[in-house]
Amino acid sequence: MTVTLPGPTVGVVGGGQLGRMLGEAAAPLGVELIVLDPTPDPPAAATTAEQIVGDFDDRKAIMELASRVDVLTYEIELADPDVLADAAEEFGIPVHPDPSTLRTIQDKLVQTEAVADAGIPVPEFVGVETKRLLSEVVEELGSVMLKARTGGYDGRGNVPVRSPDESADALQTVGGDAIAEQFVPYERELSVIGVKGADEIRTYPVTETIHREQILRESVTPARASQEVRDRAESVARDVLTMVDGRGVYGIELFETEAGQILVNEIAPRPHNSGHWSIEGAATSQFENHLRAILGWPIAPTDLLSPTVTANLLGDTPSRQSLVRTGDVSPVLADADTDAHWYGKREVYPLRKMGHITVTDRTRANGESEVAAEPLARARELRDGLGFAAEWDRQTRTRTGLLMF
Amino acid sequence: MTVTLPGPTVGVVGGGQLGRMLGEAAAPLGVELIVLDPTPDPPAAATTAEQIVGDFDDRKAIMELASRVDVLTYEIELADPDVLADAAEEFGIPVHPDPSTLRTIQDKLVQTEAVADAGIPVPEFVGVETKRLLSEVVEELGSVMLKARTGGYDGRGNVPVRSPDESADALQTVGGDAIAEQFVPYERELSVIGVKGADEIRTYPVTETIHREQILRESVTPARASQEVRDRAESVARDVLTMVDGRGVYGIELFETEAGQILVNEIAPRPHNSGHWSIEGAATSQFENHLRAILGWPIAPTDLLSPTVTANLLGDTPSRQSLVRTGDVSPVLADADTDAHWYGKREVYPLRKMGHITVTDRTRANGESEVAAEPLARARELRDGLGFAAEWDRQTRTRTGLLMF
Repeated sequence: MTVTLPGPTVGVVGGGQLGRMLGEAAAPLGVELIVLDPTPDPPAAATTAEQIVGDFDDRKAIMELASRVDVLTYEIELADPDVLADAAEEFGIPVHPDPSTLRTIQDKLVQTEAVADAGIPVPEFVGVETKRLLSEVVEELGSVMLKARTGGYDGRGNVPVRSPDESADALQTVGGDAIAEQFVPYERELSVIGVKGADEIRTYPVTETIHREQILRESVTPARASQEVRDRAESVARDVLTMVDGRGVYGIELFETEAGQILVNEIAPRPHNSGHWSIEGAATSQFENHLRAILGWPIAPTDLLSPTVTANLLGDTPSRQSLVRTGDVSPVLADADTDAHWYGKREVYPLRKMGHITVTDRTRANGESEVAAEPLARARELRDGLGFAAEWDRQTRTRTGLLMF
Repeated sequence: MTVTLPGPTVGVVGGGQLGRMLGEAAAPLGVELIVLDPTPDPPAAATTAEQIVGDFDDRKAIMELASRVDVLTYEIELADPDVLADAAEEFGIPVHPDPSTLRTIQDKLVQTEAVADAGIPVPEFVGVETKRLLSEVVEELGSVMLKARTGGYDGRGNVPVRSPDESADALQTVGGDAIAEQFVPYERELSVIGVKGADEIRTYPVTETIHREQILRESVTPARASQEVRDRAESVARDVLTMVDGRGVYGIELFETEAGQILVNEIAPRPHNSGHWSIEGAATSQFENHLRAILGWPIAPTDLLSPTVTANLLGDTPSRQSLVRTGDVSPVLADADTDAHWYGKREVYPLRKMGHITVTDRTRANGESEVAAEPLARARELRDGLGFAAEWDRQTRTRTGLLMF
């Protein structure tokens, strides 16, 4: 293909931190972004040319976006696949990843069925709508994770069910239609960021993801798993990338079972929190490769440059609050191996992703790919010094007990 | 010091490519930029929150800028130091680097006198206003480079004078008040990017700069000079950084004479074209460190990550023209070691800086700091395939003869 500059304009549904980091990657490439987001001045505003204010399923706004760009993509699963497909057809432009993939992924039952149908290993699962069925499933499978089929995000909409008599409450919490997945005793959670280009598939080195309260706290790359397990994870990720339709970056969440098996947990059709390490730690960031992929440009190398740990900075205030400041970030700024990433959100609420920090382990020689324990400890320590709660209410409470990292 | 997020807002006079790359560095740090530029939608628009449209010396516009930010800086020497000083005083905010430094640097005669007065080696120089004096100077010193005292940029305003009878024409070309510098037979031109922070000075590895028609074409880092010469260049750069007033990144252009001496050529009180390699090749880019310095934050490491070559993409059309496209950039996009940087300018004219490409020499093991010959050849080849002229007028002329790289 021939590519000339000035580059194309990309329409992005969603203007959160993923849009912001897409914008950081777009400018050097000569790619302009227009984002669609319901909130004026969202995180992506600082790094993109323009915003259309509208909901993720606002047909008029999406049509306007489509009328002004060369390709459509999205950085949030709440984008409406039908409207995207209509807009793309109306204006004769592509949408990547394909709206059909988004539609499949939006429904966790349909997603898991699709993965299973492709012969890719997943936990045992059943679609459940009634308390009675859920009780039977729990009788049969033991503990399950009950997930709302649609609309869940960052663990919201997920409820563990350990005995049949918890069924009614659990179903009510997730709001009805759900998928019950057998709880798998796992050694660790893994993630693979994959890139599906015009005519090639590439994967990034396998990342270990550390969750608490079902929210990603830290990522360690490469994962501290055996080479054999990492190879298996990569192979499963490639099968997923082959299955999905449409170009782009995908975040593929996996379980490494205690027996060393790899099971697919969830797929995100977009750059993923567990791939933020690639900004510093890989030859090319997941954001640049997402742009390259959706534009049909050559995919750039996904090689590891240095072992890398990222730690999320989450909202730790007890309620929603505007313009709260962090604690002192100067220890982060003073640390030679640490980079800060602030998302520019105007409000903080409990567990909201406000930023992340990245510790790059440059002490490791080339080829030595294990992460030392120290960078993870350091990332946690630096991140834990950064909460909002102390500022939020420094008069009336101590910070201890409020930290939710 | 204590630093909390959301971060400060920085006012930048100038919204060109340096402002654009400052914006790329600012977003992750949570720093917002407002740029002042006379051209609507300048290169920095894509990466910054807001623009004030106004000339670089527009008092009202600069006052408005100052009223909305926490610190002022500039990315172009055409900024007005007196207005900046007034605005800073009016609103009680700092300007970095100090307006007095900008004032000194704006006048090449005053600048060179200041460097010489600090005991730092410079070529022999004389201020000249008349043809008669210039003739005498050329008689005495031999060939000189005649430079307009003010307003020169990218070699514009510089005229070599090889014999006394060229004096009248040369003075007319530079427009009167000038400085004549003895032409020094040099081995190579070097550059050191220096950072002056609140309480420390750091330098980046020495860069070799390759000019043609007095415009920077390629930069090679580390410079292909002896370790002794590089150490001397760094030491001279430190002396310059000690001399100047005000925090920030400085680009320090040097000559390495045939005898291995280091002479200061010119100082830029801002990030510099010869430091663009630091985006990929150093632990921290010159743009991030400029922001850190002007904010009084800790300076981040300036260490070399990989030997790096950059090549400028210059306008090669025969005249000013809007919205010309480049040739095919796909070979650049497909090269695993090459990154593209497009400045998003809406017009092209001869020798205008439109972008650059960076080839990172990752074949070199850690500690092996020489650049192999191949990356420079590759950078040139990729860049030479990228001109505008072919597109500009592909019907009526062949590209040969128009390439100005």
